Order: sequence, then C-alpha cells, then structure tokens
Amino acid sequence: MSNKHRRSPIDLNDGVVELAHGAGGSAMTMLISEIFYPAFNNDLLLQQNDQAIFNVDTGKLAFATDSFVVSPLFFPGGNIGSLAVNGTINDIALGGATPLYLSASFILEEGFPLKKLVIIAKTMGACAHAAGVKIITGDTKVVERGKADGVFITTTGIGVIRNQTVLSANQIMPGDCVILSGEIGDHGVAILSKRENLNFETNIISDQAALHELIQLILEVGGDHIRVMRDPTRGGLASALNELAEKSDVGFVINENKIPINSSVAAACEFLGLDPLYVANEGKLIAVVAPSAAADVLTAMRSHPLGYQAEIIGVAIEDSRFFVQMITRIGGRRIIDHLSGELLPRIC
Amino acid sequence: MSNKHRRSPIDLNDGVVELAHGAGGSAMTMLISEIFYPAFNNDLLLQQNDQAIFNVDTGKLAFATDSFVVSPLFFPGGNIGSLAVNGTINDIALGGATPLYLSASFILEEGFPLKKLVIIAKTMGACAHAAGVKIITGDTKVVERGKADGVFITTTGIGVIRNQTVLSANQIMPGDCVILSGEIGDHGVAILSKRENLNFETNIISDQAALHELIQLILEVGGDHIRVMRDPTRGGLASALNELAEKSDVGFVINENKIPINSSVAAACEFLGLDPLYVANEGKLIAVVAPSAAADVLTAMRSHPLGYQAEIIGVAIEDSRFFVQMITRIGGRRIIDHLSGELLPRIC
Repeated sequence: MSNKHRRSPIDLNDGVVELAHGAGGSAMTMLISEIFYPAFNNDLLLQQNDQAIFNVDTGKLAFATDSFVVSPLFFPGGNIGSLAVNGTINDIALGGATPLYLSASFILEEGFPLKKLVIIAKTMGACAHAAGVKIITGDTKVVERGKADGVFITTTGIGVIRNQTVLSANQIMPGDCVILSGEIGDHGVAILSKRENLNFETNIISDQAALHELIQLILEVGGDHIRVMRDPTRGGLASALNELAEKSDVGFVINENKIPINSSVAAACEFLGLDPLYVANEGKLIAVVAPSAAADVLTAMRSHPLGYQAEIIGVAIEDSRFFVQMITRIGGRRIIDHLSGELLPRIC
Repeated sequence: MSNKHRRSPIDLNDGVVELAHGAGGSAMTMLISEIFYPAFNNDLLLQQNDQAIFNVDTGKLAFATDSFVVSPLFFPGGNIGSLAVNGTINDIALGGATPLYLSASFILEEGFPLKKLVIIAKTMGACAHAAGVKIITGDTKVVERGKADGVFITTTGIGVIRNQTVLSANQIMPGDCVILSGEIGDHGVAILSKRENLNFETNIISDQAALHELIQLILEVGGDHIRVMRDPTRGGLASALNELAEKSDVGFVINENKIPINSSVAAACEFLGLDPLYVANEGKLIAVVAPSAAADVLTAMRSHPLGYQAEIIGVAIEDSRFFVQMITRIGGRRIIDHLSGELLPRIC
C-alpha cells in the first residue's frame, strides 16, 4: 500500500534537472537532501524549516542581497557558486559587519546537468566554510528549458556590526585619500576569455575572493578615519568612484600611474577595446580614508594577501560638478565618466 | 566637457528593459531610482548603500528566502510582486517572528516592458506597506532576450522573534489537531486559468495574502500549545502534511468532509484532472495544535478575515510509517502520498 519509499533515486552523475525538482514534492526533497544539505552542511540548515532561526549577540545588523547570472557559469578562478557566496559576504563586510549567515535561492533550467549543480553547491559550501559563514536557508525553483540559462543564484546575507565606525557613501570630505586594494580588471577579462563568441587566450584568472578579513583589518587600523568602502564590481572602478562622488558631493582626482593593473589584463582590454577602469572586479575594494590615517591603512592592507598591491590612487577634492578626473600616464587630465550603457552583460 | 547630465531619460510607458539596465552604470541607477525607490520608498533603502543597516530590539531572528518564477506574471488576484512580498512575509511569520525587512532581487529579461515592471514594483511596495514591512535593499540583473522569462524575483526576509513559543516541524505529538485556515486550491487554479495552453473559464482568484496577523493571533491564543505552522504552497496540503509527518515521526488522519474547498475550484480540478490536495495555496496555513487548545485557536482563527473558514481537518496519530490517511466523503480511507513528480510547474 505504501509508496513512501518509492521515490526515484537521483543520479548525480548523469541526471539532469527536471521540472519535478521544483514542484514541492519528493523529487525536490531528494534534490535538496542529496545536493544542498551535504554541500552546505550545518545545524541550522538541517532543521529544515521554511525559515532559519538564530540568535545574534547584537541588534545592529547589515543585510544585503545579490543575484548572480554570470555567463559562463564556470570560469578561470571560480564559478557562479563562489561568486554568489563571496559577493554577498563582501557586501555585508563593506558595511562594517561581520558576515554570519547566508540564504541561497536557485533558479534552475530544466535539463541542467546535476553533476554541474553538485560542483556549484560544493564550491558554495567550501567558500562559506572558508569565510566562517553558514548557508542556513534556501529555495529551489525550476523553469522550463529555454526559460533560464542553466543556473541563476540569489544570495542574501546577514552580518552583525560590532564596531562603532559608521561607514557611508555620503561622508567623504575633500582631502580624503582613495586606496585601491590591488590590480583591476581581472574578473571581467577572465569571464570574457571564456565567452563563446570571443576568441583570445589569456592566463588571467578571476580575482573573486571574500574580503571580510581585509575589511576588518582596515577598520581596526583606520577606525573612524574610514569614511566608506566599496567593491568595484559591475561598472568597475570608474562607476564606483562616480557613485561615491555624487553621494558625497565631492570630486576625485586619481592618478593613472598609481592604478595597479596586470599587463595581461591591460593587453586584453586593449585587444577587446575596453577601458579597464570600467571592467568588473570581484576581489578588490576601495577605501576612502581621512588623510591622517591613509599611510597606516595602506601599510596594513599591504600586509594582507588580498591587499599586498594596495595603492593610494587619488584624493577627494571640492568639485560642485562631482567629477572623477584622472591624471593620465602622459600627464594630461581626462574626465572618467559614468558608464552610460552596456559594457559587459552578465559579468556577475 | 561634462556629461554627468547626459543620461538618457527612461521611458516608463513605452520603454523596455535593456542590457544596460543591468550594467552597473547610469542606466541602472536610473532604473532603480525611477522605478524601485519610489515604489519601495523608505529611509533605509534611500541610504543607497550596497547593504542596509538597521537595529533590532532582540537578537532572536528568523530568516527566509524564496525565488518567484510564476507564469503568467499577472493572474487573477495578484502578480509576481504581491506573491514575492507576501510569500516571504509568510515564511518569516510562520517561524513565530514579526516580519520587519525584505530584500528584493530582480532578474530581468532584455525587452521586458518597463510599464509592467512599474506595476510589479508598485504592487510590491503596496503589499510591504500594508504588512508593515520595508523593502530595504536589492539588486537588479539583466539577461539577454530568451535567457529568462520576463521577470524572476527573489525576496529574503528578516523578522524578530519576541514570543517564547518554539515552533518546529519535529514536535508534533499523537492527538494533536490539524487546523486549516480556509479553502484550498484557489491559487493554483487561478494561475492555471491564465495559462496560454489551457482554456477554461473560472471566477477563481488567487488567495495570496500576508498571514502574519493571523499567525500572531494564533500564537497569542495558543501559546505553547502551537507545535508548528506551515503554508501549503507548492505541492499543496498533501505535501505539507507528509513533510510534517516525517519530521515528527507521526501519521495524520484527515477528514475530506472537513476540508474547505470552493465548488468552482473543485470543478476546475476535476476538469483538469488535478487533486486539489496537491494544488498550491498562497494565503492559507495549517496549524498543528495540542488538543486542549484546538477549540480556542479555531475560534480565534475564525474571527480573522483570513481564517473565517478555518476547520479542524484531522489529527496526528501514532504511525511508524508516517502515513497521511484521508477518510473520504463516502467513508473509505486512502493514503495521501507525497507528490512524486511534477504537478504544476511555475505556480509560484
């Protein structure tokens, strides 16, 4: 009479995502318990309620979300899973918070190989573990073939804010220094090198990384002298600086000579007709710091593996037009404008 | 020299989503500031940082996420936006928490009409406002035409738990009563009535609703006698009961005569060859309650507009096989099994 145990097994090697895996029944339970629970393994997730419940030691929290639609899903230096975990960890940490928990929601295309989903899930679990963060709740939806592109992942993070420093995009003052943590453009170029319609060879790998430790170090050393931090992802360094300029009613002058860039990235950008200032990064940050603390913060950043190439690339100035200006290598000045249109779709 | 003000305006009437709207530059800023900020209008969102920061009055929190891929996007009784807000509010509230904040992340297909996006965003803002919840952070990605299906939305919620009652799927005991808040199947049938490949007429509208007030009422009246609550969404009442049975190592006996169902829904299900026990609901809940409190909880539920049709539909029993049995209208018994495959893709 019973068919409690009649559930079809799931073939993690040769199976593919089916519509039934999103239907709320036993196929979905199987998918979750065979792929996501082992990969994200932690006590809160394994309570298997529709919400995760936890206690935090302070009531001041940071909350951030990002959807990831990167194409291709696997690229030199990472995959959509590492990006989804590290990207949201970074957004939480950039608010001055210690990231604690993530949710992960998957939109899967019918026909997507389970083997690839397993790799993505394991990568997410490993990245979360490495960062001391737990993926404690989630969701899985499946759409018909041709209605999505393999896998889209949305991660949302919660962190607690224990330090007193208030970070905000609107408190930059003229004279503040802009510190960039390392070379720009690696992520964008690594993704483009794997796009089917492009054909170039490079040894560049994505810089995707969890920046929370570097951020904590910056806050410890800089304290209230840190005005704001940003990760220059979509739209690159240029977009991040323009956004900060407008929010703080200042301008910036940056020095092209000081902006770290790998020569292979520079060459690839030239080949592709891209300005590396607009190319996405996934493991870099800019910190805007009061001038009195800039040297100490720079030294501290350079002591960390994710900041060893840090440079003070420029300063904030009074400018009622909120321009970002760059002193070029040959000594001229040019305006670094907003990215006005599309540069690189689906870079993250 | 400047082109700070050269941004092309956004045409909310006749414009469509373009890849540039996801590129991290000024087109994206425009989309967010013209559509999402006015629709979700609140102080935390308008700080425009990459994360929202807030204080809560207790450190016991509930956290839940859901992606919404419903097709069609607009249906009788709601749209993907109302579903995305109310669905996550419900997941938070079902954990015994007061929902406070949501994040909203959008994956948009190139070419999607902005006019529709405006309606969806306004609906989300209105639903959040009605529930006393704020949408405080978000993300927007755009994928190429044919790589998504209009709009996918992922919402994640945070709530605070102020009451002492511990709700969990694993604490049901034999003898506990199962209370269902109202008629089943409305949401699923409303969606199906608008599917292009089906052709039937019905006056059924989705039951989608925010259940947090009803849930709070149940907790106030039932206190520690409330074991667990669930919303029978994907997979319907049958899947929710099976899941609870397995997590608590009990069986259930439910009474078909007691299960509220609208006659039009019953007729549509018969026409479509669907068992309404497996059809999705988006504004119903089941509460499993100790027998001593069941009558009071039922009375309280019936006093609320979202619970006026509530019924005690069955009881938990000892059963080492964890079966859900139903006494049918004609007095027989049948096993209500897990949904094993796909029933209705993209119902939420």
